[in-house]
Amino acid sequence: MASAPFPLLYADTDRSSDALYFGGVGVPDPFIAFGAHGRRFAVVSALEFARVRRESVFDVVLPLEAWLEKAKAAWPRRRVGAAEVIRLLAREYRVRTFTVPDDFAAGLFQRLRALGVRLTVADGPLFPEREIKGAKEAAAIKEGNRCSALGIAAAAKVLQSSQIRGNDLLYRGKRLTSERLKIAIEIACLEAGALSANTIAAGGDQACDPHDRGSGPLRANSLIVVDVFPRVTATGYFGDMTRTFLRGRASEAQRALVAAVRLAQQKAIRAIRTGVTGKSVHAEVLKVFAARNFETKQTRRGSVGFFHGTGHGLGLAIHEPPRVNAIADIVLQRGAVVTVEPGLYYPGLGGCRIEDVVQVTNEGAAMLSRAPYHWELR
Amino acid sequence: MASAPFPLLYADTDRSSDALYFGGVGVPDPFIAFGAHGRRFAVVSALEFARVRRESVFDVVLPLEAWLEKAKAAWPRRRVGAAEVIRLLAREYRVRTFTVPDDFAAGLFQRLRALGVRLTVADGPLFPEREIKGAKEAAAIKEGNRCSALGIAAAAKVLQSSQIRGNDLLYRGKRLTSERLKIAIEIACLEAGALSANTIAAGGDQACDPHDRGSGPLRANSLIVVDVFPRVTATGYFGDMTRTFLRGRASEAQRALVAAVRLAQQKAIRAIRTGVTGKSVHAEVLKVFAARNFETKQTRRGSVGFFHGTGHGLGLAIHEPPRVNAIADIVLQRGAVVTVEPGLYYPGLGGCRIEDVVQVTNEGAAMLSRAPYHWELR
Repeated sequence: MASAPFPLLYADTDRSSDALYFGGVGVPDPFIAFGAHGRRFAVVSALEFARVRRESVFDVVLPLEAWLEKAKAAWPRRRVGAAEVIRLLAREYRVRTFTVPDDFAAGLFQRLRALGVRLTVADGPLFPEREIKGAKEAAAIKEGNRCSALGIAAAAKVLQSSQIRGNDLLYRGKRLTSERLKIAIEIACLEAGALSANTIAAGGDQACDPHDRGSGPLRANSLIVVDVFPRVTATGYFGDMTRTFLRGRASEAQRALVAAVRLAQQKAIRAIRTGVTGKSVHAEVLKVFAARNFETKQTRRGSVGFFHGTGHGLGLAIHEPPRVNAIADIVLQRGAVVTVEPGLYYPGLGGCRIEDVVQVTNEGAAMLSRAPYHWELR
Repeated sequence: MASAPFPLLYADTDRSSDALYFGGVGVPDPFIAFGAHGRRFAVVSALEFARVRRESVFDVVLPLEAWLEKAKAAWPRRRVGAAEVIRLLAREYRVRTFTVPDDFAAGLFQRLRALGVRLTVADGPLFPEREIKGAKEAAAIKEGNRCSALGIAAAAKVLQSSQIRGNDLLYRGKRLTSERLKIAIEIACLEAGALSANTIAAGGDQACDPHDRGSGPLRANSLIVVDVFPRVTATGYFGDMTRTFLRGRASEAQRALVAAVRLAQQKAIRAIRTGVTGKSVHAEVLKVFAARNFETKQTRRGSVGFFHGTGHGLGLAIHEPPRVNAIADIVLQRGAVVTVEPGLYYPGLGGCRIEDVVQVTNEGAAMLSRAPYHWELR
């Protein structure tokens, strides 16, 4: 799938990974970016002008203020904004139809159409080539996972150094909580140059809800899922890793659960190579869980077993194509980067997820993350 | 301005502060939320269902999977998604026209229209009542600023404990950099329960570009702008404070610059009360700078002087209504929360910005931030 020849964006780069990909520079406020006849254009305010010209890959950086003046001259009776500027730019740079991403703002979309600008919403990603990561991007994701691994190591250290008092964990004399563990993780990421938001450190039944970030006291002899997906400040690329820990002594049932998840992950990683479908990788996980009688079902209180996808693409966004799940019938392309993160969740017994990141090659999966799998911290 | 009776959102709460405001719960993946006949509805997946039902203010939480099944039954030949589910919901709950926010995704907007769902884009904010902060919200913003102040105090401590070697600053034996200072700030915020992204710690000419976050070595005897706007993890509300420091000894010109900015800030704060325009508050700042001959102009290398707004609304978004700037002719309403952050920027001399947060009352501005103004760290 080729990239749109005349892409148009109006977003800040925190919200739009497309804008960050297209210009290669972080811009905190929404700005106009577009492509025309092989060149990349940005229109930014005086606040951003010098920095964007210096640091971005835009071929042409235009001053917003001057273009707003031109728009005022063209529409003297109205309050002009991005829409009017884009209208003028379309004429100036001879663009007949812009392609906008699915998440383009509907308000601006309507104003542009009312001004006679022709727009198409991209059918799928605006830049499909984002799915294929070059060496520099793979290195940036590896760096993200180095930060993840440091966060996970910090968590392991806190858990290991916590004292067991019955089912409680004491860290530096206080009850160890999910909040405290997340702070240790996030500090480790910060010191490595990455920002970890929405970090998960969830124990017990909380960990059985894969979106519960965890709160309150963590328990001894109980599974604790630690999922760390920091964004590297310098590049905008993410890492994404999960390990499951237990401080104390695991039961046989807990060991069987963790062993099944780890085996499922290994089988899935081994199944990855150029040209296989996400679905077939996901099937490897299902096979392991079925063989070991880990059932997936709906209960009155929610789903138990394995009820999420095996993985997702990773890059400038935390979730991007390609997906690796039960319905992903598109093949994995050479250079794609995906997470592999099977999990099992049974309230009462606990939750376990183990996640690494790999790049798809013709020979198999190349690991882009690295951290120990040792989990039972006695 | 009244809130739209039938608002419709499809967004995650990291991207959409409207979705966070409407449901009062963080949801990391896009989800359907809407209002109908006085009740608030959410449609979420099994991953979120229990948590959203437990923690949100939604009156009705519907299971996404069941509604996707209904959509499949209604459109057996196509791949159904949020659009088809919303179409069914509009019928079920008798909604004739939904109002969507300006940043609603254009792709979904088009798919909904193609399905015959009537949509209006909100003219202005989707929830204009967000501008008025209740006591609980003011307390949450105050808490954000407590975190900001801790970050700023951490920066001051690092600067104060740095050694001066000529124009260099040495911290723990190494050149002190913007990056190092930002880490100290962000750790202090994290430990207080807030995430500080895009923190600014910029010195010298970098600080003259208000969007430059700062990089590389910081210098002695040079102005350093520290702008900290963390988001409190528990509530989603932001703090936003700026202080300008100098480690070493300031020149008379630097002192005059800082004194003018601080006086301008005080005058602006004193001008704030229910019913005044943002423009008139901004004018107080301009008056101080004019009286002291701090000129604002365009140069070949960019703008110098004071070339941004005096302030902006603050809440679940870092920038929200009302604005306090040269064109803000709307009056400040009782309960609104705004930053007051004049600045002066002259490459060669340096940049200075001082920022606090206030709530508008009938009697004047009530401070929601608190940190020392001591800036020359000898």
